[in-house]
Amino acid sequence: MRQPAGRAERRGGGSRKPREERWAELFAVATEVFYEKGYEGASLQHIADRLGLLKGSLYYYIHSKEDLLFEVMSEVHRQGLANIVELASRPGDPLQRLRNVVIGHVDHMCSNLTGTTVFLHEMAALPEERQAEILGGEHAYRSVFLDLVQKGKAEGLVRADIDPKLASLSILGSVNWVYRWFRPGGEFTPKQIGEHFADLIVHSLAADGVLPAAKPAKPKRGKKTTAPES
Amino acid sequence: MRQPAGRAERRGGGSRKPREERWAELFAVATEVFYEKGYEGASLQHIADRLGLLKGSLYYYIHSKEDLLFEVMSEVHRQGLANIVELASRPGDPLQRLRNVVIGHVDHMCSNLTGTTVFLHEMAALPEERQAEILGGEHAYRSVFLDLVQKGKAEGLVRADIDPKLASLSILGSVNWVYRWFRPGGEFTPKQIGEHFADLIVHSLAADGVLPAAKPAKPKRGKKTTAPES
Repeated sequence: MRQPAGRAERRGGGSRKPREERWAELFAVATEVFYEKGYEGASLQHIADRLGLLKGSLYYYIHSKEDLLFEVMSEVHRQGLANIVELASRPGDPLQRLRNVVIGHVDHMCSNLTGTTVFLHEMAALPEERQAEILGGEHAYRSVFLDLVQKGKAEGLVRADIDPKLASLSILGSVNWVYRWFRPGGEFTPKQIGEHFADLIVHSLAADGVLPAAKPAKPKRGKKTTAPES
Repeated sequence: MRQPAGRAERRGGGSRKPREERWAELFAVATEVFYEKGYEGASLQHIADRLGLLKGSLYYYIHSKEDLLFEVMSEVHRQGLANIVELASRPGDPLQRLRNVVIGHVDHMCSNLTGTTVFLHEMAALPEERQAEILGGEHAYRSVFLDLVQKGKAEGLVRADIDPKLASLSILGSVNWVYRWFRPGGEFTPKQIGEHFADLIVHSLAADGVLPAAKPAKPKRGKKTTAPES
């Protein structure tokens, strides 16, 4: 957990817990409260109440609710990006690496659903310059996917007519949307989701002959149906 | 524009505009204000101010801010669903129809970005029973995509190992995420986005031999690179 600059010097407000531990607790509780109430619906008072602190004590750590959101967003982004950058750097051709990134990203999101949801849902609550500060000038997150699609194209693994930018936006959408419908203990495990999504994504991009031939499902009752159903 | 039940009988509060016109105006302004401020950040006072009405006058039309969000969400959903149901019912095999649905859905979203954004971003602000009332017991929206994937599989056009439920969730994510990054006048037109996404989606599903062979991009400088880049 990152310690915000300059805050290590501040006094812990008479608490007996070490400052680092208090900050980690504040961070976790803020993430939960933003998740449950949404950023606009949450207040520093809610967060202080849940921590059993006076609201004024929070100002030892942050200056405003926006600061707290910024810290949460930065940390969630840092961890998520580190995860996919590490996965993308493993051996394999670009499609194999894309596959690993998708599976690992879905797993990371599903294992960190609270933080991920706050990150993906509340970004617009931050002023644009603070969004840019988190995402990076080149939109670091999207670049990992874009780079793999571009490399795949350069190596002849990806179809010639693929636009790498649109393709990476499509991939990000498919994968990021998981936070909207995934529930732990639900119908699909993170592994099942990640592997199936990776399979769909790789097939959406691959040039002919790059992947093993995919068998059609056996047509039911052998009927010919191309007529529209209403 | 739907007229909420029972409201047609109410008096227009001394306004000279017909009640239907007032309601349409309220509806449009509420959508804008929810878009700009988010549901939690918006207030009936904001909406009344923008309409040049006293806040009390709004109660001729709705009982609460939540009622207003519910009406906006219901209408956006009704229009979006009608659009894809109509597209899905046109002639063609299931993959052709899926292609039309994706292109038409992206176009509809991009042409109705304000309403779409409120719909996709603020659903969680409604109580679960009102969400269910809008989405329908069978999740009508997702069902259109699910149904086409299932039909494609039954006709042998879709790979045997595709899970139609996961595939339709992947498609919905890819397509719905467009509201997060599309800006009118930006790098891509809605048509370009829709067609490229439809192409990716159809390739992600199609059994071998169903689509024309897809040529690889010419490898650059003929180099063999399967080594990882850092």
